[in-house]
Amino acid sequence: MDETYNYICFDLRKLQKLYQKMAQKISSRKDDYSKWYLDIIKTADLAENSEVRGCMVIKPYGFAIWEKMKAQLDTMFKETGHQNAYFPLFVPKRLFEAEEKNAEGFAKECAVVTHYRLKADPNNKGKLIVDPDAKLEDELVVRPTSEAIIWSTYKKWIQSYRDLPILINQWANVVRWEMRTRLFLRTAEFLWQEGHTAHASKTEAITESELILDIYAKFAEEFMAMPVVRGVKSESERFAGAEETYTIEAMMQDGKALQSGTSHFLGQNFAKAFDVKFSDKEGKLDHVWATSWGVSTRLMGALIMSHSDDLGLVLPPKLAPIHVAIVPIFKGEEQLAEIKEKLDPIISELRKADISVKFDDDDQKRPGWKFAEYEAKGVPVRLAVGARDLANNQIEVARRDTQEKASISLDNVVEHIKTLLEDIQENLYSTAKNRHTSNTQKVESYDELKEKLNSEPGFFLAHWDGTIETEEKIQKETKATIRCIPLDAEEEEGKCIVTGKPSKKRVIFAKAY
Amino acid sequence: MDETYNYICFDLRKLQKLYQKMAQKISSRKDDYSKWYLDIIKTADLAENSEVRGCMVIKPYGFAIWEKMKAQLDTMFKETGHQNAYFPLFVPKRLFEAEEKNAEGFAKECAVVTHYRLKADPNNKGKLIVDPDAKLEDELVVRPTSEAIIWSTYKKWIQSYRDLPILINQWANVVRWEMRTRLFLRTAEFLWQEGHTAHASKTEAITESELILDIYAKFAEEFMAMPVVRGVKSESERFAGAEETYTIEAMMQDGKALQSGTSHFLGQNFAKAFDVKFSDKEGKLDHVWATSWGVSTRLMGALIMSHSDDLGLVLPPKLAPIHVAIVPIFKGEEQLAEIKEKLDPIISELRKADISVKFDDDDQKRPGWKFAEYEAKGVPVRLAVGARDLANNQIEVARRDTQEKASISLDNVVEHIKTLLEDIQENLYSTAKNRHTSNTQKVESYDELKEKLNSEPGFFLAHWDGTIETEEKIQKETKATIRCIPLDAEEEEGKCIVTGKPSKKRVIFAKAY
Repeated sequence: MDETYNYICFDLRKLQKLYQKMAQKISSRKDDYSKWYLDIIKTADLAENSEVRGCMVIKPYGFAIWEKMKAQLDTMFKETGHQNAYFPLFVPKRLFEAEEKNAEGFAKECAVVTHYRLKADPNNKGKLIVDPDAKLEDELVVRPTSEAIIWSTYKKWIQSYRDLPILINQWANVVRWEMRTRLFLRTAEFLWQEGHTAHASKTEAITESELILDIYAKFAEEFMAMPVVRGVKSESERFAGAEETYTIEAMMQDGKALQSGTSHFLGQNFAKAFDVKFSDKEGKLDHVWATSWGVSTRLMGALIMSHSDDLGLVLPPKLAPIHVAIVPIFKGEEQLAEIKEKLDPIISELRKADISVKFDDDDQKRPGWKFAEYEAKGVPVRLAVGARDLANNQIEVARRDTQEKASISLDNVVEHIKTLLEDIQENLYSTAKNRHTSNTQKVESYDELKEKLNSEPGFFLAHWDGTIETEEKIQKETKATIRCIPLDAEEEEGKCIVTGKPSKKRVIFAKAY
Repeated sequence: MDETYNYICFDLRKLQKLYQKMAQKISSRKDDYSKWYLDIIKTADLAENSEVRGCMVIKPYGFAIWEKMKAQLDTMFKETGHQNAYFPLFVPKRLFEAEEKNAEGFAKECAVVTHYRLKADPNNKGKLIVDPDAKLEDELVVRPTSEAIIWSTYKKWIQSYRDLPILINQWANVVRWEMRTRLFLRTAEFLWQEGHTAHASKTEAITESELILDIYAKFAEEFMAMPVVRGVKSESERFAGAEETYTIEAMMQDGKALQSGTSHFLGQNFAKAFDVKFSDKEGKLDHVWATSWGVSTRLMGALIMSHSDDLGLVLPPKLAPIHVAIVPIFKGEEQLAEIKEKLDPIISELRKADISVKFDDDDQKRPGWKFAEYEAKGVPVRLAVGARDLANNQIEVARRDTQEKASISLDNVVEHIKTLLEDIQENLYSTAKNRHTSNTQKVESYDELKEKLNSEPGFFLAHWDGTIETEEKIQKETKATIRCIPLDAEEEEGKCIVTGKPSKKRVIFAKAY
C-alpha cells in the first residue's frame, strides 16, 4: 500500500469522528425542531443575530443564496413587464394617517424617527445624546411596507388611462417592530421585494394579482423545490386594505405551514385614500385599481426547513451558490499538481455549463473536515479524488440529498454531474411533495380536527361556514388557523365542522410559523 | 409621391417644432447649468423629489441605469474575491460612542429612531401620535455608513490570522441628514455599496485599498466613459478614521470636480475602537488592519453631467438600458406588418448579440415625438424606417452622441450597429478626456490661481506646502478645494503658491460638487 492509501485510510477513520462531532453541533429534528433550525443556520454560516435587537446579519453564504433567489424572481418579474424603481425609506406620519382611515388594522409597531441629529453630551465626555433642538415636526416612520409613500407618488404620475398600467417592483429593506424574532422567519428588519401596480380596470388588477401568485408558486416549486398550495386568505387574515389576498402556503418538515408569498388585490382602496383618479377613454374620472405583492428573506427560512436534514443544510441545485465541491486527497505538492492537471479540463467544462465549482486545495484542512463542511453547507454534489482514483481513472461522487456515493469514470464526469444535479432538484421536490401529500388529510368533525392537531403534523381540510366567529373560536381553542381557501378546492356539499352550517368548499387548517 | 412620403414630410415639418418644444423644456448648459442638470433628470424621467424631505424617488428608467452600474461593479468585486453580505440598517448609539473616541470629526446629522410604536391620538380621531410608552433606551441611528455595526460584528468573527482576510461588500441604503440636497448628487437617503475588509497586515490592507481604487477608476473610464484622476486626499479631506483616503475625481462639463468614489485605508483605527485582535502565525496578538470603500447613486449625477447635451441625456452604450430604439414610420396595420416582417430577424440578431432593442410601434404617438423622446433619454442609436426605406432596402441610423444620421443598407445593419456602439462608447470617452485635458492647467502663483478660478473652468495644478492652514486659507478665499494629490504627479522642485515653502508635487485645486 502506498502512502496516499494509508493517508486516506487514516482519514476515513477520522471521518467518522468528524461526522459525529459535526452532527453534535446540530440538534436532531426529532429532539428539538426549533433548535435544529437555528443550528442549521449556524453550521451552514447563513446568518446570525446582530447587536441590534431583532435585526440579523446575513452572512456571505446565506446572502449568496438570497442573491440567487433575487436574480430568478427579478427575471420572472421583468419577463412579465415589470420594472424596478426605488422609493424612500421613510414614510411621513401624515401619510399613514391618510391610509389609516381605510385600514384601521394596520400594524403600528414600527421604528419612528423623531430627531435628525446627535450631539456630544455636555455632561458626559465621550458620550452622545439626541439633540433636542433637532426634533422633526412630522415624524418619519421607517417603511414597514410602501403602499403609502408609493401611492402618494403615483398620484403625481397618473392622470389618464394612457398612464396605466404602472407595473413597478422594488427590492428593499423594511422594518416591523416584532417582539419575538427568529432568524429569517421573523426579524425586525428584513429584505424583500414589493410590487405595486396601478390599473385602469378591476379585471386587469385581479389578473395581475393572479399572475404574480403564479410566478411565486412557480418559483417555489421549480426553483426552491418546495410544493405549495395556492389559495386565498379568509377575510380576517387578509392584508389590511386588500379586497383579496392570494397566498402560497408551504408545509415544513414538522408539518407546520409557512406563508411564503402574498399577492393582494387592493381594489380602489389605496387610490381612494390617496385620491388617485384617472380619466378613461371617454374622459370619465374613476379611481385607479391596485395590487401589491411581496416575498421576503422569510423564503430562506422556508428553504431551510423544506429540505435540510440532521447533518446540515440541503439545497436545491437551482439555488445553490456552489453546485460541486471537489476535495482532492493528496500528500505534497506533487500529488496535488497531478490531480489538478487531470481535473482542470473537467472543471472548465463544468463551468462552461454554468455549474459552479469549488476546488478546495486548502492544505490546512483535512479532507474529512471538508466533507463535513460541504455537507453542512448543503452543496449538492461532492467529488473526492486521490492518487489511487487517478490511477483507476475514476472519481468518487457523493450526492448531498440521499447521501449516496459512487465511483465513476473520469471520462463522463461532466455529463454525469449535469444529470445528477437535475436528479437532485427533482428528488428534493418529489420528496417534499410526497410529504406534503401524505400529511394532508380531510377531517369531518371538530373533535377529529382537535384530536389530529394534537397527534399528527400537517394540513387538515375541513368545512367551515365562512364566518369570522367560527374561525376565531377554532384558532383560540386549537392554535390552528385557516391557512387558505385553496384555489383548486373541489366543490362539494358539506357542513361546517363547528356550526353545522352549509359549506361548499373545504379550507386548510394548520398550525403555522 | 405616395401617402407614406407625404406623411413623413408632414412629420419632418412637425419634427422641427417638436425639437424646439423639447429643447425648451431643457435649459441650456450655458444659460443655467444647475437648471439644465435638473431638466435632464426630469425629461429623461430618471428621478424626482419625494414627499420626504431630501429623499428621492428613483424612477424606472433611472433605476435601470443604476442596475447596470451595480451589475458591472458587482462583477468586478466578485472577480477580485469579494462577497456580498447584509448588515443591519440601524446602529445603536452606543456603538457610535465607541467610534467617536477615534473619530471626533464624524458627522452627527443623521436620522435617529427614538420610539418603536405609533398609536391613535386619543384627542384627535383619525390622527396618530408617537407612543410615549414605546421609547427606546438606547436610540438607534439609521446607518450613515456601516463601519461601527460591521466592526462590532467582525469582533465576533476574527480570532486568528486564519479568519483573515475578510472581503465583504454590501449594497445598501444609507441616510445622512443633508440640509441642501440635489437629485443624485446629494440626498438624505442614497443607495450605495460599501466594502469593509479586514487584513492581517498593513501592506495587505493598503494593497486592497489600491486594488479597489483601480476598480473604481476602470469602471469610471471603461463603462461610464468618464476620465478620472486617481489620487489621495489631503489630511483634512480624509474620511474620519482613515489613515489614507484614495479618490477618483472627475471633471464635469462646467469644469467643476466631482468626487466619484473613495477607498479608505483605515489602519488599525476601527479595530482599536472595537477591540478586534487576531493572533498571528506565531500566536502574537495584534489589531486587525482595515479598509472601507464606496460608490453611490452620486455616480448617476456624474454620468449625467459628463456627457449630456442641451437636447437631453447622453448615455454610454455600456450603461444604456436601451441600446437601439427603432421607430417604424407607417400608416395603417399593413405597412407596420411589412416593416415588422423585415425587421424581426434583424432585431433577433441584435438581441442575440446582447444589444437591447426597443421596437416602438405605439400608434398613439407620432414618430417625431418618439425621436425627441429617445433623444431626451439618451438612447445611443435610433433607427427609423418607412415604406420608402424598405423599398430601397435601407434604414436611417442616427447616433445620439454626435447627432449624425446616415442611411445604410438593411443587409449589414447588425454589424454596423455593433461597430457604432463601440464608436459611441469611445467617442464619449475621448470627448470627455479632451475636455479634461484641455481644462487642466498648471498655475505658478496664488494670484494666477485666483484669477483663473474666476475666469476659467477646470482643474488647476499648483504647488502646496502640505499644511492644513494653507489649504484652509485657499478654500476660504477662493472656494476651491484640494481635490487630490494625483498618484501620477511628477516629482518636481517647487514652491507653495501661498507660503513659498518647498513642495515636491503639484496638487489639484478646483471647485467641486
